[in-house]
Amino acid sequence: MSLYETLAAEIAKSIRDGVLRAGDKLPSVRDACAARHVSPSTVFQAYYLLEARGLIRAQPRSGYYVSAPAASLPPEPGASNPDGESTELAISERIFDILGSVRNRDVRPLGSAFPSPLLFPLPRLAQAMATHLKRQDPLDTVEDLAPGNPGLRRQIALRYLIGGINVPAADIVVTNGALEALNLCLQAVTQPGDTVLVEAPTFYGALQALERQGLKALEVPTHPRTGVDLDAMEAAIQRHAPKACWLMTQFQNPLGSLMPDDKKRQLVEMLARHGTPLIEDDVYGELYFGSTRPVPAKAYDTQGLVLHCSSFSKCLAPGYRIGWACAGRYTQRVQRLKLSSTLSASGPAQGAIAEYLEQGGYDRHLRRLRETLQTQQARMADAIAQAFPAGTRVTRPQGGFFLWLELPPAVDALVLHRQALARGISVAPGPIFSASGQFGSALRLNYGHPWDAGAQDAVHALGKLAREACRRPADRQT
Amino acid sequence: MSLYETLAAEIAKSIRDGVLRAGDKLPSVRDACAARHVSPSTVFQAYYLLEARGLIRAQPRSGYYVSAPAASLPPEPGASNPDGESTELAISERIFDILGSVRNRDVRPLGSAFPSPLLFPLPRLAQAMATHLKRQDPLDTVEDLAPGNPGLRRQIALRYLIGGINVPAADIVVTNGALEALNLCLQAVTQPGDTVLVEAPTFYGALQALERQGLKALEVPTHPRTGVDLDAMEAAIQRHAPKACWLMTQFQNPLGSLMPDDKKRQLVEMLARHGTPLIEDDVYGELYFGSTRPVPAKAYDTQGLVLHCSSFSKCLAPGYRIGWACAGRYTQRVQRLKLSSTLSASGPAQGAIAEYLEQGGYDRHLRRLRETLQTQQARMADAIAQAFPAGTRVTRPQGGFFLWLELPPAVDALVLHRQALARGISVAPGPIFSASGQFGSALRLNYGHPWDAGAQDAVHALGKLAREACRRPADRQT
Repeated sequence: MSLYETLAAEIAKSIRDGVLRAGDKLPSVRDACAARHVSPSTVFQAYYLLEARGLIRAQPRSGYYVSAPAASLPPEPGASNPDGESTELAISERIFDILGSVRNRDVRPLGSAFPSPLLFPLPRLAQAMATHLKRQDPLDTVEDLAPGNPGLRRQIALRYLIGGINVPAADIVVTNGALEALNLCLQAVTQPGDTVLVEAPTFYGALQALERQGLKALEVPTHPRTGVDLDAMEAAIQRHAPKACWLMTQFQNPLGSLMPDDKKRQLVEMLARHGTPLIEDDVYGELYFGSTRPVPAKAYDTQGLVLHCSSFSKCLAPGYRIGWACAGRYTQRVQRLKLSSTLSASGPAQGAIAEYLEQGGYDRHLRRLRETLQTQQARMADAIAQAFPAGTRVTRPQGGFFLWLELPPAVDALVLHRQALARGISVAPGPIFSASGQFGSALRLNYGHPWDAGAQDAVHALGKLAREACRRPADRQT
Repeated sequence: MSLYETLAAEIAKSIRDGVLRAGDKLPSVRDACAARHVSPSTVFQAYYLLEARGLIRAQPRSGYYVSAPAASLPPEPGASNPDGESTELAISERIFDILGSVRNRDVRPLGSAFPSPLLFPLPRLAQAMATHLKRQDPLDTVEDLAPGNPGLRRQIALRYLIGGINVPAADIVVTNGALEALNLCLQAVTQPGDTVLVEAPTFYGALQALERQGLKALEVPTHPRTGVDLDAMEAAIQRHAPKACWLMTQFQNPLGSLMPDDKKRQLVEMLARHGTPLIEDDVYGELYFGSTRPVPAKAYDTQGLVLHCSSFSKCLAPGYRIGWACAGRYTQRVQRLKLSSTLSASGPAQGAIAEYLEQGGYDRHLRRLRETLQTQQARMADAIAQAFPAGTRVTRPQGGFFLWLELPPAVDALVLHRQALARGISVAPGPIFSASGQFGSALRLNYGHPWDAGAQDAVHALGKLAREACRRPADRQT
């Protein structure tokens, strides 16, 4: 064996033996050279070989990491299969009840919708806040109210530009988090009684927004890797003429699906043919694990029909409640809805984030955050592979911080949710992601929290509950 | 003449001669004793005499001020007289157009809805923000999201308690300013198509909220001193069965009316008889000029039918966008509407205000703010008396920062608004406060900005425009 093959074999053995585990970082090329007294090219060749075998993966500007052992993971779920009818919603109260039960610091937050606040640069944000408040002209406190802090809107427009999307700062409406942006966009393009097309499963906040505004949901098949099925979607549009679509094209909640760029283009073109607006919920777009930043469907929008919504809540500043809408031809309508409902997002929070972005360092923070999330995903997937019963399927999202599990049909996710809560563990049960009560055996788990023995134990406890649920029918027969 | 009568006569002459002007502060009793070599009781007797004559007025804990020369002020307007029908709304766009035209720093903001940001303790708030962010447990950033920062809710409950209102902190929902609180309360008690009873004139934001939610407005006669006419209101309720009332019982915008306490009690009792919820918009309640803090109608609510809404935007922290609802029996509904529409108010803004309130000093700030506003009101009223045409009527509000002018019918307030804007002065024209297009010759002027030569010139310029409008029909006859 050549020198690099020997090195690769040694590393592969360490991975097989569990010395190196999924998500572990390999030594840098320089460190490996020094430790092994080999040349950089030998290390590079060894790493390339291991990467080709799927044992490790490169993380741009960061280094190499041990991959999750793909062969040993449960299989992935397939596309969903909703019934194709539009549904009047009566699920909001159930969602509130379930979400309300998990808001407790002593509960292991696998059902949470937020990553750990410990992952965010809160001290640097506090400094940016101080700088902003010190520099601020008092008159700006009132005059900048709406549609938002000019510096922040410029920074957001700059980030669009980096993604190749040319949006004037004037088209950006700063909102109280993405949730308000999405709600305002929905109001801008619908009337009570209208139908709105959504993914299956879909973010429960979308279902609640639809219900609150008296709208019907039309769920379409969605694949855990590539998102919504465009043919099924076009057929549904022709049949039901929805007034809008509400989709997450990037790291969909809860599936984690990432629609390929070309498919996004086709989506936007298809919707333009039908004149149907797309409300694009893109709050996870920055949390990609691949080497390049994917672009939202908004990038392909030539007709102003895409209302792109995002926020800083999931990737920078939880609790600051700063999001935005970039609403194309509906911009003025969204601005006015905002003015007459909440007037403006909080001035200090806007100013602090603007100051932070101007100072630089956001991309460095995001790189670290993505690495952490990717490592934690591998750890959780590994634990699931060990603990959950045969027949479990689990997604392999390329970004975000959610895993979606489809368990054997014997498992009732709502029962499991209650049992887990009694053990101090929250989960997000599948039915809260469905207008029509589907996904009764599915769970969404959050891997955005530090991976430790407690997290490991929690996943094992969930797996045990699921295994017991699978055995129960057999027990009854004896 | 006795010593004190001589002193009083001298001061009265100074006022008549314009040496002392409306809003000027008289020397303290101690200073007056020292300057005149008289006893404190002589000074007190002189001041009491002048007060009895209406020439000066006592400001608790502050001293004595020259009153606006009541005799020379234009008369007060009478109660409004709306047509008694419920009105479908189509006014929101006009309101936006007019408000949009006044958002310009170079315009003298007599049409603004905010007092000058220079009146607020922004540096102390910035310190409180720094303290809050330093002390904060990162986990609180997410866990405190809704229904709000516990410390802030406790402080708000404490302020209710000072006013004699016992409200558990758990019943307070923190919102993005009072506007969101009001909108959520409206959603909690109505369905599209319902009728809501409002004052005439009423806050344009209420009209926009009604229009956006597909509600009809039922305007009832309102007196500039004592607020809504209860008999007319009860008759309107019996005839139209509105699903809610939206009133400002304290320093109503735009009239400045303050409903007497006993009338508030009657109001609440009458609404309880009809089971009609009251949305009480109380954002100006802290800005009273009298010696005691008036209590909102909420104080008389035994049935949980009063949804009390307020904020810190007009009296402490403009731009922070922190308000709240205390919604009685509708609390959970409002909480859930909040959760599903904007999730939570901004965490840092909530924490900073909580910290500021805990540190103390809010009441001291409020005393100074009230004195300033009262002085500025006297100055503006004086300028109006000098500049506006015969037939003008003007309110004498006992709090807040708005004067309401009813001009001779020859004056078209919308024309005057445009003419004034061309001269760099904004006004709030009467029709934006009416669902039915009334108040075509009325203006709301903001005296919450520092009184200086420019402000004086602006009022004089407005008066000149009004006088010209009155002359115009005569001109045409010649």
